[in-house]
Amino acid sequence: MAYPTPDEAEIAFYTAFEQRDLATMNRVWAEHPSTACVHPMTIPLTGTAIAAGWRSIFDAAAHFRLSIEPVQQQDMGDVVVHIVKEHLTIGDETTPRPPILATNIYRRDADGWRLWLHHASPVQVGNSDEAQVLH
Amino acid sequence: MAYPTPDEAEIAFYTAFEQRDLATMNRVWAEHPSTACVHPMTIPLTGTAIAAGWRSIFDAAAHFRLSIEPVQQQDMGDVVVHIVKEHLTIGDETTPRPPILATNIYRRDADGWRLWLHHASPVQVGNSDEAQVLH
Repeated sequence: MAYPTPDEAEIAFYTAFEQRDLATMNRVWAEHPSTACVHPMTIPLTGTAIAAGWRSIFDAAAHFRLSIEPVQQQDMGDVVVHIVKEHLTIGDETTPRPPILATNIYRRDADGWRLWLHHASPVQVGNSDEAQVLH
Repeated sequence: MAYPTPDEAEIAFYTAFEQRDLATMNRVWAEHPSTACVHPMTIPLTGTAIAAGWRSIFDAAAHFRLSIEPVQQQDMGDVVVHIVKEHLTIGDETTPRPPILATNIYRRDADGWRLWLHHASPVQVGNSDEAQVLH
């Protein structure tokens, strides 16, 4: 069962992340070999490898707290793109880690909306002149 | 004038990047306030700020060499997503910098294909266990 809106798919995604709920995480993702999940600083996991990646992350951490800050949104009809900032606290840490920027692509199929791509990457905190940072 | 295929839009994008050709760079991007360009480690530039970002990058560097390695592709009809690795050499450097991973979203409008989103981020070289890297 997919989700009635991209927003509901996104809430399910981040709730599953925070609660380390692999069943819901797997439900959020489309079942397709071209799905892609980029954890920070890594090359993409694709297709069925995505679930194994989340399992490994969930096994490695004791407890997550996560807050999501919307940054930008693109509505392309049956494809919706959200850019968000993720503020993650792990275990007994008292302050969030430096923010992670994520691009999330949701697509509507016959069933509803699912996640097709998640690209997460670090953001340099305190960088006031982004355009000067080169590829 | 847009491009007849996503591949041609991508070739134009990276050729404009390498040649520091701002006119072509601006032609590749859709003209819409929700377009988004994430240079490595930065928050997104959106809409008209994207061109100013590229101008700043082009002004700052003497010479680029760029090679692109396809990683993953998603065909969603009027939206196509490419994930690529960018290998960039700047100025007189003799070896490419550590690779950059980019998600590029192309969308077809009445005119053809243009770029709507570019999210570039560093990849940790020599990381053999991506799934262990936490958000």
